[in-house]
Amino acid sequence: MFEATKVGRSVSKEDYKLQQEELRTQLLAAQRDLRSSNLPVIVLVSGVEAAGKGEVVNRLNEWLDTRGVQTFAFWDESDEERERPRFWRFWRSMPSRGEIAILFGGWYQTPIEHRFKGQCTDAELDGELNRIVDLERMLIQDEALIVKFWFHMSEADQRARLKELSRDDRSRWKMLPDKSKFSEHYAAFEQVAERVILHTDRGIAPWYLVEAGDRRYRDLTVGKTLLHAIRSRLSEAAPEDHSQNLVGPDLPTSRSAQITLLDQLDLSLSLSRDEYKRELKRLQAEINELAWTAYKKKRSTVLVFEGVDAGGKGGAIRRITNAVDARLYRAIPVAAPTDEEKAHHYLWRFWRHLPRAGHITLYDRSWYGRVLVERVEGFATDSEWRRAYSEITRFEEQLVDSGVILLKFWLHISQDEQLKRFKDREEVPYKRYKITDEDWRNREKWPQYKEAVNEMVVRTSTQHAAWTLVEGNDKPYARVKVLRTICKTLSESLQRDPVPTAGYLPCGEKHPEADKERKRSNNAK
Amino acid sequence: MFEATKVGRSVSKEDYKLQQEELRTQLLAAQRDLRSSNLPVIVLVSGVEAAGKGEVVNRLNEWLDTRGVQTFAFWDESDEERERPRFWRFWRSMPSRGEIAILFGGWYQTPIEHRFKGQCTDAELDGELNRIVDLERMLIQDEALIVKFWFHMSEADQRARLKELSRDDRSRWKMLPDKSKFSEHYAAFEQVAERVILHTDRGIAPWYLVEAGDRRYRDLTVGKTLLHAIRSRLSEAAPEDHSQNLVGPDLPTSRSAQITLLDQLDLSLSLSRDEYKRELKRLQAEINELAWTAYKKKRSTVLVFEGVDAGGKGGAIRRITNAVDARLYRAIPVAAPTDEEKAHHYLWRFWRHLPRAGHITLYDRSWYGRVLVERVEGFATDSEWRRAYSEITRFEEQLVDSGVILLKFWLHISQDEQLKRFKDREEVPYKRYKITDEDWRNREKWPQYKEAVNEMVVRTSTQHAAWTLVEGNDKPYARVKVLRTICKTLSESLQRDPVPTAGYLPCGEKHPEADKERKRSNNAK
Repeated sequence: MFEATKVGRSVSKEDYKLQQEELRTQLLAAQRDLRSSNLPVIVLVSGVEAAGKGEVVNRLNEWLDTRGVQTFAFWDESDEERERPRFWRFWRSMPSRGEIAILFGGWYQTPIEHRFKGQCTDAELDGELNRIVDLERMLIQDEALIVKFWFHMSEADQRARLKELSRDDRSRWKMLPDKSKFSEHYAAFEQVAERVILHTDRGIAPWYLVEAGDRRYRDLTVGKTLLHAIRSRLSEAAPEDHSQNLVGPDLPTSRSAQITLLDQLDLSLSLSRDEYKRELKRLQAEINELAWTAYKKKRSTVLVFEGVDAGGKGGAIRRITNAVDARLYRAIPVAAPTDEEKAHHYLWRFWRHLPRAGHITLYDRSWYGRVLVERVEGFATDSEWRRAYSEITRFEEQLVDSGVILLKFWLHISQDEQLKRFKDREEVPYKRYKITDEDWRNREKWPQYKEAVNEMVVRTSTQHAAWTLVEGNDKPYARVKVLRTICKTLSESLQRDPVPTAGYLPCGEKHPEADKERKRSNNAK
Repeated sequence: MFEATKVGRSVSKEDYKLQQEELRTQLLAAQRDLRSSNLPVIVLVSGVEAAGKGEVVNRLNEWLDTRGVQTFAFWDESDEERERPRFWRFWRSMPSRGEIAILFGGWYQTPIEHRFKGQCTDAELDGELNRIVDLERMLIQDEALIVKFWFHMSEADQRARLKELSRDDRSRWKMLPDKSKFSEHYAAFEQVAERVILHTDRGIAPWYLVEAGDRRYRDLTVGKTLLHAIRSRLSEAAPEDHSQNLVGPDLPTSRSAQITLLDQLDLSLSLSRDEYKRELKRLQAEINELAWTAYKKKRSTVLVFEGVDAGGKGGAIRRITNAVDARLYRAIPVAAPTDEEKAHHYLWRFWRHLPRAGHITLYDRSWYGRVLVERVEGFATDSEWRRAYSEITRFEEQLVDSGVILLKFWLHISQDEQLKRFKDREEVPYKRYKITDEDWRNREKWPQYKEAVNEMVVRTSTQHAAWTLVEGNDKPYARVKVLRTICKTLSESLQRDPVPTAGYLPCGEKHPEADKERKRSNNAK
């Protein structure tokens, strides 16, 4: 597939001067229009060694107005990054709407390297590429424009370029602290690259293969491609990718079919005051101990609390935070997003609060707002909340794959119980602040919420991240059930080491199976 | 000074129950009022070992609405934190207006530990305490409420408590991964504590010494103190600390006295096209090399660009970013603050972009906006911009002390040259976006800006962070001067190791002088 990048295209000096002037003016104009748009632009820069990726990026920074461009490289992985799911560092680098982020290598760098060095199998590589395709699709559906460049040249040209670079004491290449050795195995590297490009070259996020032999040709091509990509996207709506919008058949609407999981909860379950006191004390001691064990084992925990208004989220959360050392957890109340949060994909604000190794984050409401309040109140469009189910399950899969212990609670109460609690809140002085007109308004939409909750539970209760439905009419029962579930899960999970269920090794360690499979696939040829 | 914490105060169980109910209601109410106020609340929790700091913090989290409280401990220092000035981690933990942050130990933890272990001298400790007082004053002037608790008990009580804790397998204390050994040297620890408290017990941020022998008394006292502190601050304006508002005599206003540093700039300085080309090429190669050297030596650089509108900031910055590998720098354009930024002290938005070790941050406009545009346009009150001079110099001092290479450029042009450039911008298509009505309006305030700039240069050109005034009428001259200054400073700074000029060792290494001085001061007794 790389033949087209080895034909020796070039641009003369005069021609370059002429074209550059015009291109630059247009890029600046496009950037201006971009600023008032909703598009975040992500430029990925990859390619063979010595193709001049750094030069291209500096050229773009020269042509564009730097006040709307940020460049990110991913070589210096910090411990804060290492301790979180591996895409966390990319989420940190996401551009705001109207801005451009240039990512060196981006999410392609590590998989390519790992495969090239035999640290993962083809199958594992494909798995990771699937996750990348999901990520890109999700961003694009949220208006992002992703422009992916692959710089390539023939082996002979690469050799010549490397020779030239090593002669020049001041070449950027020579100053790179860790030089890759890809060029010494040109064919093998090209093979991995081809697999990656083929797998991830989708209509909505195509790869642009750029011949890198001639610097002027290379830079002009990049500039023009970027300009064209921005201009086209600005003049049209975001591409709807219907093929991926599979939402399955609608749930049946007949009367009997409307009996949901929630209806089957036995809301009469309760605990006596004595049992409650005893269990609470025991479980609180246990959870604190488990939290410390998790800290020492560097296992992170994410606890999600959703529920009917007045369903007892706050009370359940407080029983945990009272018990666990405050140094080990952070409780994130999810309310209206800040303007920085609004300028990003809706999952961004949850990514930013993921715990460091050994810590716990409690989300008091969560990403599920997308398919609950945003759906019912019409804050999200139909296709937005529909596609959120798969966005959410994939997000959670990443958490679990990276070793995070994830638990999701739905605190449920009956409509009568809610009414009782609302009235109670209006009467007790220190509870009054908890009840607002909005609560009463939401209550009128009980059936719509019920439908949304039911669909949410059905679609997002996956094997790696099941919902725990909590019978909440009796507060003591609910609180003990929550605590007990957490203790049980923590103690089971902490007894075994985290297994990367996706079969992909984020840490770059040598995979025992990888060698075998590579040999197998080599033999097959 | 700790006698009052050893008198054996206690509260009975019944009394506690009674008081707690009332206290909690009031705390929640206070928190609600806080939310709609401008106050960030910082609660510092310190004290002797086994006094139950963790218990108190959990109690506060129980009483308060957790949706407005975040707790921060500072034991797990990440590399991202280690690579920046030592207060960076505290700036990361600053509460937004209307919220509460509980800081374990906070900025007092490390200095106390270092002095206790003999890793710094009394004089060095005092120096750090001065910086802490400055920080607290600055935050308070920006509406913050700081409540500092010191938990104390007699040596006998502490022994008893430690014994009790070590018997209880599930005590929080027992689970702490790194237990301090302070209790084994009770008197020595108390001595350091007294020095710290005396030095930092200011009217605007007093210490509350709490007897920690009885848990119920301790917790109630903390709750009531916090409640009272919030209530008092909500009912009054922020305390103006006039004693610290020293702004010096106003600059003389006679005609001849109005000749400023800026007037003395020789704006006729220029470079020929040939010289420019040659110098530019040479300096750009040099700066890239120096940036790589700085990266390898883990020295960070902060470049500040301020200047008259159309003074050539953008052009000068671009000559740097073209040259330096894009992986090594980040350019931060400073425009209107986001709402998260507005919810913090004005320096917060600059702290957050400080570079990691070995990287460069270019600020395109900066914290100096406070004493320039905010002063002239009246966005900051008189006392706000007046006190900003010392806030800024102390901020910069921290950067330099932590080893950051700091350079500040003022790009100056004549009023005529500005007019020429404005007109030019209106005519050239790809420059048109750079000129707005606001530029023309600002131009009418030339004298006010000039006065502000002059005072800024006078008051903030310190030994550790001098301004470089750049004669900007001739763009080639200005760009080369900027590049040359950076190259010179970088190459000089990189040849010597960073010297912690404040004489304080942020890294906690044993200071060779510390032992000597301690012996001296011991002998003197």
